[in-house]
Amino acid sequence: MSTTPALQLPSAGDAFQNAVIERRELRPDDVRIDIHYAGICHTDLHFGYDEHGAGKFPMVPGHEIAGTIAEVGSEVIGFVAGDRVGVGCIFNSCGACGYCEAGDEHYCVKGMVMTYSTEDYDGTITQGGYSRSIVIASRLVLRVPDALGLDVAAPLMCAGITMYSPLRHWNAGPGTKVAVVGMGGLGHMGVKLAAAMGADVTVLSQSTRKEDDAKRFGASALHATADGSVFEELAGTFDLILDTVSAQVDMSAYLGMLKPEGTLVSIALPDGPATVNLMDLLSARRSLSGTGIGGISETQEMLDFCAEHGVVPEIETITAEPSAVKEAWHRVQGSAARYRVVIDTGALAP
Amino acid sequence: MSTTPALQLPSAGDAFQNAVIERRELRPDDVRIDIHYAGICHTDLHFGYDEHGAGKFPMVPGHEIAGTIAEVGSEVIGFVAGDRVGVGCIFNSCGACGYCEAGDEHYCVKGMVMTYSTEDYDGTITQGGYSRSIVIASRLVLRVPDALGLDVAAPLMCAGITMYSPLRHWNAGPGTKVAVVGMGGLGHMGVKLAAAMGADVTVLSQSTRKEDDAKRFGASALHATADGSVFEELAGTFDLILDTVSAQVDMSAYLGMLKPEGTLVSIALPDGPATVNLMDLLSARRSLSGTGIGGISETQEMLDFCAEHGVVPEIETITAEPSAVKEAWHRVQGSAARYRVVIDTGALAP
Repeated sequence: MSTTPALQLPSAGDAFQNAVIERRELRPDDVRIDIHYAGICHTDLHFGYDEHGAGKFPMVPGHEIAGTIAEVGSEVIGFVAGDRVGVGCIFNSCGACGYCEAGDEHYCVKGMVMTYSTEDYDGTITQGGYSRSIVIASRLVLRVPDALGLDVAAPLMCAGITMYSPLRHWNAGPGTKVAVVGMGGLGHMGVKLAAAMGADVTVLSQSTRKEDDAKRFGASALHATADGSVFEELAGTFDLILDTVSAQVDMSAYLGMLKPEGTLVSIALPDGPATVNLMDLLSARRSLSGTGIGGISETQEMLDFCAEHGVVPEIETITAEPSAVKEAWHRVQGSAARYRVVIDTGALAP
Repeated sequence: MSTTPALQLPSAGDAFQNAVIERRELRPDDVRIDIHYAGICHTDLHFGYDEHGAGKFPMVPGHEIAGTIAEVGSEVIGFVAGDRVGVGCIFNSCGACGYCEAGDEHYCVKGMVMTYSTEDYDGTITQGGYSRSIVIASRLVLRVPDALGLDVAAPLMCAGITMYSPLRHWNAGPGTKVAVVGMGGLGHMGVKLAAAMGADVTVLSQSTRKEDDAKRFGASALHATADGSVFEELAGTFDLILDTVSAQVDMSAYLGMLKPEGTLVSIALPDGPATVNLMDLLSARRSLSGTGIGGISETQEMLDFCAEHGVVPEIETITAEPSAVKEAWHRVQGSAARYRVVIDTGALAP
């Protein structure tokens, strides 16, 4: 057993406290990672405020982790101390089922173990990346290419793969028209990734406030949805719409902006169920789908793609002070972050 | 102008009457078809009872047409008198937009004209296949392969392509598990086609009444949904579920039977909107979609596939008496048809 400093929530909605938590002894296939940066994901807030009743306290959030290998287990192949690495949402999976073998650990039949607030197969509760180090099986560790700074690499571990995976799955690329609804932490990565893949990208935002940013990130246009005429103007336009906003939307209005055989993908989970007029689907084989993260191999592919195409998130870096992190959570809550906040966990007191 | 005998509904819900209707003079690219058989599709009832307010009366229903070429226009290439042919739901399309050029006439930007109860571009109201002859542009005519009888070919023009197209689109074949919900006119074609494509097919029916038929058609199993335990038993089983039943279903229960990245496709339109728990989609990238018919080239591909694989609908043939057709409609309404009723229109008085 080893210990590490961490930022801990004693209970739902509490202030963060400096704490010291335990990490397991290295198993033969484990690595210990010195965490340099941890991104703040909106999901951290859902768990930290226990909005869905799945929070396990005391909690150390964080599943956007970047750092360096500190130590390797006796049977680890391919990693050595000093390697630049990352950890995302997948902390454990059975490693043996068809999905795990196909690189889809997030569909593991035994149930994927998330990086924090989840009971691992050995009964321990996972504790995340708002900490100084973590111990994890090496097969679930990502390599950060040299071209990517560790600070900008951290948010790619969740926000990056969450947008990259659906864009690949639904074949975004030259000749396709992609809309991204909402341009926050997820949305701005979607714009940059889709543009780098060669797609024509439109941002659908409440107002035109982020228009300059959208174009800088690679979008060809931003339309304000507060002006309802946009739905008629853009009817039948898109092959793929990625909805990153967790508010209820008028499904018919959004489905109507799809071309025949187009797909509307929900990425953020709204509070209640959605009401769908099936005729919107039947009339031209349109689909409604949802997506989460991708598997380890696709996450590595995404990191390599980002390095090759110079795609990185826009980040603000904050110190690992409890008050600074809580203040950042308030800004994430109020959609005021530009665009992803990253905690400099390297500064956590040893 | 020419005339032809037909079975006509004077107004919504009326009895059929023998009538004589007009067909346009042959344009240079038109053919006149002697109709030998017309299938009864459930859609005919929706229009005939004006359930969706789109009925135009007096109405001659019918969009599952099989017969022989009687006459060809001056510029028609490739068809001669006597050729065995069919007409489905597509009576007209602009022929010039990107969708028409790609063989997706059903997505025509000018708006596909349906074979009956629709205003054509020239202002006339289309009249369907419960008649002795029809005049239509030759590019929208299907060839019936020699191996298919004209009687069994008729229902393929709508029921056949409506099931074939989604099976192809979602890659049904060896190694995939397909469920067909409801085994009526559409569903039984879905079972036969999916089995012929090499998929493992399961029928989900209210009771086990049709189990023997399901297996005869190529299904490996039939499960009764009245026994609610089936949803748990089959959780995570299917790549594709084709729902041919126009009753409201518990979406979560059906989505739960999909594998990760599987798709539930609505084919029959329920009365009201559907309620969808987006978490059912997000948790494993499941999709909800809908589908109608396919384009002309894919319909031809389906006919050739059916000829090659010996796939034909189970039909009952009835005379073209007004009372016999109305009685058949009652059986279709009551799900008592086994499995598609075909009108012997060749017997209509000239």
